Amino acid sequence: MSSNKTEQGFVSFVSGGPGPVDLLTLRGKSRIESAEVILYDALLDPSFLSIFPESAQILYVGKRAKEHYRTQSEINSLLVEFATQGKRVVRLKGGDASIFGRLSEEIQSLESFGIDYEVVPGVSSVTAGASDLGISLTVRGLARQIIILDGHTILEDERSWMGMENFPGTIVILMGSQKTKELAERLIQKGVSENTPIVLSENVGKSNVTHTVSTLANTMLNGIEKQSKGPGILYVGEVFRSLLQGERLVLEEVPSPSSILESL
Amino acid sequence: MSSNKTEQGFVSFVSGGPGPVDLLTLRGKSRIESAEVILYDALLDPSFLSIFPESAQILYVGKRAKEHYRTQSEINSLLVEFATQGKRVVRLKGGDASIFGRLSEEIQSLESFGIDYEVVPGVSSVTAGASDLGISLTVRGLARQIIILDGHTILEDERSWMGMENFPGTIVILMGSQKTKELAERLIQKGVSENTPIVLSENVGKSNVTHTVSTLANTMLNGIEKQSKGPGILYVGEVFRSLLQGERLVLEEVPSPSSILESL
Repeated sequence: MSSNKTEQGFVSFVSGGPGPVDLLTLRGKSRIESAEVILYDALLDPSFLSIFPESAQILYVGKRAKEHYRTQSEINSLLVEFATQGKRVVRLKGGDASIFGRLSEEIQSLESFGIDYEVVPGVSSVTAGASDLGISLTVRGLARQIIILDGHTILEDERSWMGMENFPGTIVILMGSQKTKELAERLIQKGVSENTPIVLSENVGKSNVTHTVSTLANTMLNGIEKQSKGPGILYVGEVFRSLLQGERLVLEEVPSPSSILESL
Repeated sequence: MSSNKTEQGFVSFVSGGPGPVDLLTLRGKSRIESAEVILYDALLDPSFLSIFPESAQILYVGKRAKEHYRTQSEINSLLVEFATQGKRVVRLKGGDASIFGRLSEEIQSLESFGIDYEVVPGVSSVTAGASDLGISLTVRGLARQIIILDGHTILEDERSWMGMENFPGTIVILMGSQKTKELAERLIQKGVSENTPIVLSENVGKSNVTHTVSTLANTMLNGIEKQSKGPGILYVGEVFRSLLQGERLVLEEVPSPSSILESL
C-alpha cells in the first residue's frame, strides 16, 4: 500500500488468546487477515504465522528479546505513525488485552492524535489455565469471587494486599511464578489457610503446558520449582482441592441416576 | 447416529463468549461443527444458528424460560446419558465457562461415570465489556488487581466482603445490576472513595450494548437505571475515570512525537 494515502488509518487491538491460533476469536482472525501492518510482542505461537497475510508488514516489538527491543513509548509512536499513513493496523497482544496488556498507554496515544481504534477481546490465560485443568474458578457454596493479582508488585507494595485479608474466593497470581515461596508465606500471613491448594500452571494454552500442585504450607517451605522458562500462573483456592492426591472436591449436588432422556 | 454405539462418547464444554458468534474461538467453532448433540442454556445470540450442524440434535436446557426448564441435576443427567450413548456432545455456555458457569457440577457428573471431557475456554463478558469501552482493567500505577464478585450473594453474606476493605484495584460485579444502590452504599462503607467511577454495561458483546456512567456517591443516592432487560455488569474503579464527563485518566507516559518509523 502507498504511504501517501490521505484517509485515516485504524488500529485494531486484537487479543490473541493464550497460545495456539485456534484459541483466537473469529473476529480477531478476521482483523488479522485484513491487516496491512501487524505489531506483536507476546511470545507468539508459531501457529499464528498461518493466518498472517503475506502482504502485511509484520513487526516484532517485544520487550523481552534484546534485539528489536522497543520501549512502550516507541510502540505508541509506531501505532500513531502507521495509522497516520492510513494503514489498517493490528496490534496483536497475548491473552486478553484488557488484563495486564499495557492497553491504556497505547490507546491514549491514539486518542491524542484523533485516531480511531477498537479493542477485540480474547481468551485470557486466567481462564485458559483453569479450563485445561477442568476446574471452574467459581463454585457454588465454595468460591463466588475471583481476585487477579500481579506477582511483580504485590511483594513490593503493602497496599497491594489490602484486599487480601481472608479472601473468600479463588486467587489468581500472574507474573509471580519466580516467587512462590514468598507469595505463599504472605498469603498465609494474610489469613489464607495453610492447607489451601496451590497450582503453578506454566505455558498455559500451549502444547507444553504443565501443572504442579501443592499446598500453601508446603510451598512456603519449599517453593514450587518451575518446569520451564515460560510464563506461569499461580492458582490458589479450595476449588483446586480435587487436584491434590486422594482429595476430592465435595459439591452439594450429585448426579441423578434417573433417565431424563425418556422424557424428551 | 445410532444410540446403540458402544464406543465412549465425549463432552466438550464450549465457552461461547459474550454474544455474537464472531467472539467465539476457532476451537469452539470446530467443536460445535462436529457435534452430534448441542445443549445450550445462555441467552444465545441468533448468529450461532449459522454454525450449528443440521444433523445435530439441539437442546435448549435454559434455567430462565419456563418452558423447557431444566434443573442443574437434569442437565447433568442429560450429559451423562448422551455421552453413554457414544455421542459427541457440546455443552455450550455463555461467556467463559470457568466463571459462574456451573461447570463443576456437570464435570463431577461426567467423572462419576468415567466419561471423557474437555473445557474450551472463551471470551468472558468481564473483558468484553471493558474492551467495548476501550478501557483496560489494569493500568500501571493505578490498578494492578481485579476482583470479580457475584452481585447475587455479596449483599446476603457478610463474609463476601472480607476481601473488599479498601480494595486497591478494579472491581467487577456480575449479576448485580438490579441492586446498584445497595452495592454502591456497601462499597463506600468498605472504604472505596465516593468519587470512584462506576459503569453499568448491559448486553455486553451484543449490538444493543449500553454503558451508563456515574459515581459511587450518585449511585448510592439514585441507583443506576437499567436500560434493558438484558444482563448487566458493574465496573467500579479509577481506570474508568476518563468516561466521566470532562475528566481524564492521567497516565505516566505520553506519546512521543519523534518519528520512529525512520529507524526501522
